[in-house]
Amino acid sequence: MIELVGVDADDTLWHNEPLYTDRRERFRELLARYEPEGVLDDRLYEVELRNLQHFGYGVKGFVLSMIETAIELTAGRVESGDIATIIRWGREMLSSPTELLEGVCDAIEALGQQYPLVLITKGDLLDQQSKLARSGLGRHFKGIEIVSEKDAGVYKDVMQRHSVTPSAFVMVGNSLRSDILPAIAAGAHAVYVPYDMSWVHERVPPEALADVHYHEISHMRDLPALLATLNHYPGAGGVDLKGALR
Amino acid sequence: MIELVGVDADDTLWHNEPLYTDRRERFRELLARYEPEGVLDDRLYEVELRNLQHFGYGVKGFVLSMIETAIELTAGRVESGDIATIIRWGREMLSSPTELLEGVCDAIEALGQQYPLVLITKGDLLDQQSKLARSGLGRHFKGIEIVSEKDAGVYKDVMQRHSVTPSAFVMVGNSLRSDILPAIAAGAHAVYVPYDMSWVHERVPPEALADVHYHEISHMRDLPALLATLNHYPGAGGVDLKGALR
Repeated sequence: MIELVGVDADDTLWHNEPLYTDRRERFRELLARYEPEGVLDDRLYEVELRNLQHFGYGVKGFVLSMIETAIELTAGRVESGDIATIIRWGREMLSSPTELLEGVCDAIEALGQQYPLVLITKGDLLDQQSKLARSGLGRHFKGIEIVSEKDAGVYKDVMQRHSVTPSAFVMVGNSLRSDILPAIAAGAHAVYVPYDMSWVHERVPPEALADVHYHEISHMRDLPALLATLNHYPGAGGVDLKGALR
Repeated sequence: MIELVGVDADDTLWHNEPLYTDRRERFRELLARYEPEGVLDDRLYEVELRNLQHFGYGVKGFVLSMIETAIELTAGRVESGDIATIIRWGREMLSSPTELLEGVCDAIEALGQQYPLVLITKGDLLDQQSKLARSGLGRHFKGIEIVSEKDAGVYKDVMQRHSVTPSAFVMVGNSLRSDILPAIAAGAHAVYVPYDMSWVHERVPPEALADVHYHEISHMRDLPALLATLNHYPGAGGVDLKGALR
């Protein structure tokens, strides 16, 4: 029986990646007139990766990485007005409306009546709290876990804190790398709800998915039905029930 | 009886403000050659305050505010190499060693044997987790609460989550504004351990302390004795027991 449902936030409950994609595009336009040296997208990703251990996930680290990339790719020629623009983008991203994905509001309300829900998200603390507050979904969640990284240890901690066994916990999210693989590694169930764009960092090579059994749905609105199916097959851990749902 | 002890982290367990003070000083030196227009410290604080609602507390927001201040005060003349330097300072601050205050290690170990401890700190999630890990103190804490703001509501949430009443909870920290006044407002006990420097934002006007009863100690090593005194006077809420300790 499922006793606790973990739900990812960015690109599972509300749109997030489009904000980043949009600024990456504007960043390309902004730097174009400097005729930057090197491949911009590759270099930005390299700088983001290098900074991840220091700055973590989220808008502030993204902004700092864009500024560093701009300075490096223009060999210092980038003007301070353009740097001010990049910081302004950060403020805009942090205050832009929280746009829920289609059907999420009803799905979360229905689920919240059946199961205790816990939101599990990485990123900047203030940003994620603020998005949740603006989403209006907060009241449906029993707990909010904002974490700096999503690995098996984090999922084990959450299960321990809420006193549930792995077979009674299911994680739902759009990232194979952060929501599905580590939850499975922690012994839990996992439901993948793909989002139509994802940051390269969240992607996993196909071979990482060999022998990994998780569930997949197209929309959050299919989640209550899938979880009911899981409850009918209590020993389902490790068995793909996609067939049973359709 | 005290059943849960909340402990602040920055400048209560380990030195933090000196890292900021040092970079503010270097920031002044860096901008001096541009002959900045306006009073640098005032302007930096204004920018930090303006950004607080977007960027929150912590190193990343501080770095972004320094960059904006540099651009504004030099009317855009600041060179991109100096902006790169400011970002490098951020990485250095985030990876600098966690230096415990004198006597903290023994005090926390002793307290941890007598009371459940919970760390309550604001700032960037990854940064605070990383400092706690490097401090070696993590094992003494039952819970870690990294919050975006410290107000009475946050303290009430913590007490509720740990199922303690306000009279059984005491908050310990170096900030009157963040640790003492809101904990008292939430009905709890509070112990002020002054640190010899504090960010202007954390200061409170003397009149805010009129009729506020809290305890004050010079060192964390005096905390176990003070808490024992609190336990001897279970109705102590609102009465200053400094005299009883000495």
